[in-house]
Amino acid sequence: MKRVKVALVGCGTVGSAFVHLFLRQRDEIARIYGIQLELAHIYTRTPAGNKSLDIYKKYPELIVNSLDEILSDPEVEIVVEAVGGTDFAKDVFTKSFLAHKHVVTANKALLNECWQELFGLAKDQKVSIGYEASVAGGVPIIRVIRESFPGNQITEIVGVLNGTTNFILSEMGHKAGSLAKVLKKAQRLGYAEADPSDDLSGADARNKLSILMRAAYGLKFDPKSIYMQGIEDIILEDFEYADKKLDASIRLIAYCDSRGAAFICPMFVSKGDLLASIPKQLNGIKLSALSFQELSFIGPGAGGKETATAILADVVGIAKGTLINHELDRVSKTQLRDFGELTFQHTLRFVVNDRPGIIRDISTILAEEGISIQAVEQNDYPESKSRELPFLITLHAAEEGRVQKALRRMNKMPFLVKPIMIFRSFV
Amino acid sequence: MKRVKVALVGCGTVGSAFVHLFLRQRDEIARIYGIQLELAHIYTRTPAGNKSLDIYKKYPELIVNSLDEILSDPEVEIVVEAVGGTDFAKDVFTKSFLAHKHVVTANKALLNECWQELFGLAKDQKVSIGYEASVAGGVPIIRVIRESFPGNQITEIVGVLNGTTNFILSEMGHKAGSLAKVLKKAQRLGYAEADPSDDLSGADARNKLSILMRAAYGLKFDPKSIYMQGIEDIILEDFEYADKKLDASIRLIAYCDSRGAAFICPMFVSKGDLLASIPKQLNGIKLSALSFQELSFIGPGAGGKETATAILADVVGIAKGTLINHELDRVSKTQLRDFGELTFQHTLRFVVNDRPGIIRDISTILAEEGISIQAVEQNDYPESKSRELPFLITLHAAEEGRVQKALRRMNKMPFLVKPIMIFRSFV
Repeated sequence: MKRVKVALVGCGTVGSAFVHLFLRQRDEIARIYGIQLELAHIYTRTPAGNKSLDIYKKYPELIVNSLDEILSDPEVEIVVEAVGGTDFAKDVFTKSFLAHKHVVTANKALLNECWQELFGLAKDQKVSIGYEASVAGGVPIIRVIRESFPGNQITEIVGVLNGTTNFILSEMGHKAGSLAKVLKKAQRLGYAEADPSDDLSGADARNKLSILMRAAYGLKFDPKSIYMQGIEDIILEDFEYADKKLDASIRLIAYCDSRGAAFICPMFVSKGDLLASIPKQLNGIKLSALSFQELSFIGPGAGGKETATAILADVVGIAKGTLINHELDRVSKTQLRDFGELTFQHTLRFVVNDRPGIIRDISTILAEEGISIQAVEQNDYPESKSRELPFLITLHAAEEGRVQKALRRMNKMPFLVKPIMIFRSFV
Repeated sequence: MKRVKVALVGCGTVGSAFVHLFLRQRDEIARIYGIQLELAHIYTRTPAGNKSLDIYKKYPELIVNSLDEILSDPEVEIVVEAVGGTDFAKDVFTKSFLAHKHVVTANKALLNECWQELFGLAKDQKVSIGYEASVAGGVPIIRVIRESFPGNQITEIVGVLNGTTNFILSEMGHKAGSLAKVLKKAQRLGYAEADPSDDLSGADARNKLSILMRAAYGLKFDPKSIYMQGIEDIILEDFEYADKKLDASIRLIAYCDSRGAAFICPMFVSKGDLLASIPKQLNGIKLSALSFQELSFIGPGAGGKETATAILADVVGIAKGTLINHELDRVSKTQLRDFGELTFQHTLRFVVNDRPGIIRDISTILAEEGISIQAVEQNDYPESKSRELPFLITLHAAEEGRVQKALRRMNKMPFLVKPIMIFRSFV
């Protein structure tokens, strides 16, 4: 029977879950695939951590005191990098590659920062990178993109890639409270971190979208150049409007297509759309391809056990020889499109000190920029005691750049209490 | 560059869609994976068919006059069997294997009839069978089962595996009309065949479920021994009850788990469940695994182009050497469980000639069999002009065998207009 030695670097939530799953499945994997996997070494820089200690107590013989002990074992073929961050993790990658070892990871930040460099080095050393776990945790989207649409068939990817914001927006949609209130609930339940800014701002979703874009289309781009708008300023009235007027909900949507469009922003999503009904903190991804329109995946986007499942799948794929990277081979000449060129239906939400002439001023600017108004809606909010009124205007489909220009002018209007919030719908 | 010759047998809807997709993607596949695929021969027994003629006119040089011309070309490595049926298709399989050629297929009927034999022969000849297309068309569920949960991690599969019945039930749920009426609509739209009996009876779903069970669990069993109940007798009042009393809809559910339970039957599915909101004629599958509960796939279960996409993915997988069968290696000792051992919440729908004492007679039998009633609901149906009343009784969770026994007794009651219809819910 073929024997393959595996080493683990990092032993926090994901690393320790991997150890448990690995040891539980090892014998079945040997029986089915005829490959005897062996977990040879575990190295962690924080051996006193809760999870590390637990593993150390159970399997003291596996713990080593340096990365070098792993690198210098010529029998280790696969290194699982469960460190996180970008500094030491990058060392783990590059040193493993130079020692001709494959690397499996969930590290989306590092992959984004060093995509070309890491895949280039892996290719030179004839080793593979398994990164299924880096996008949408337990949802096997990378494998599907890599294996199920050979050639260049995927035309569009629309996703809810951040579980924290999905939980928050779906709670707000069910009138559970303001953003601040449901964020606290999410933190209590472990669905949001103490510092949720990367989730709320869209930065986490953008990291995942960037990986999907590279895996599916081979685009070369700077992830930071993808348009990104967060959910920080969404208020309950926005849901009320979306619900009553458009039979829609609000979700933080990550979008990219084969023509180079890409963005992250809160969107009005029709309630008939599966992406509007993703439960709780789950993730959802909808693929379109040349030959069909709708293939959706909904599942856990995070969690130690779920991520460990994806890591183990990559480890076994590499051990079987079936995980082969073609990331650099599919690089396309398509460029990231300017966000201003895209067309949406926009809804603008204003919070104003009420006074006569507001609609006139707004509609004048819109008309001057050649943008048509489809509907002006001013809900009654009996609970609102101040004269600060939120109201919403939905525009006819328009080019983003044109709306941005009008927005810059409108944001200078003296009656605004806060900057105009913008929602988009697909047209 | 590695060159791989492919041949196609059968040139109907799926075969011709495969030709178009293959030729469209060939150059991109060569560029990305470094494999030059060549479509060398096409053989069809009905060259005068619409689809065949179209291909013949465009690519006359590809058409050959016998299967032997394909088998005797030693350079052909992969045969795509798009014949359908079980007689000639089986010839294509066995003769291709004996000529050391891999086979890719969408043929669920043949796979079910000859699973052990075909996989055994393929193993002996060291060739692979690609069968992604045989279950849920464009949904890459076989690949996910094979690659994403290595070892023995999948605990449960719940699916809506038949698009025709999903369309019918979802239309009935939206009050579009009786089963007969929406079936006609489905036929008009091409979602149902002229003879829909295999769809309505659950036989088609059972074929697909059987393949999933073998792929995921390696169970050995006779597919015909799986409990199967169709949707033929469902009436609009059933939806009304499910909707109003249980906030549920009705779907034809295919279920199996790692402990050997398996069945096909119409079930009450909570509207919060993704399986209740699968649009139109799509399919949906929900996997549970050791490490997590919810991973759902929703997509096209049929259609020439969609099926061709799955076939091409298998062709490329075999050409790359990444599609490796372990179907016979994972054979488990688990036996199919007796359906009577399973526990559900049952809802019974009676259509009776109304008269005093009906509930008394029913409840007496149920009490004698030790089954508790949870609710008796008799809706008002103002449009009902006869004295034939449908009404529904929901029972407390009970073992299936016990309910079946009561059912046999109750079905002899003289006031029944038709046999009692049974719906189940998961408990």
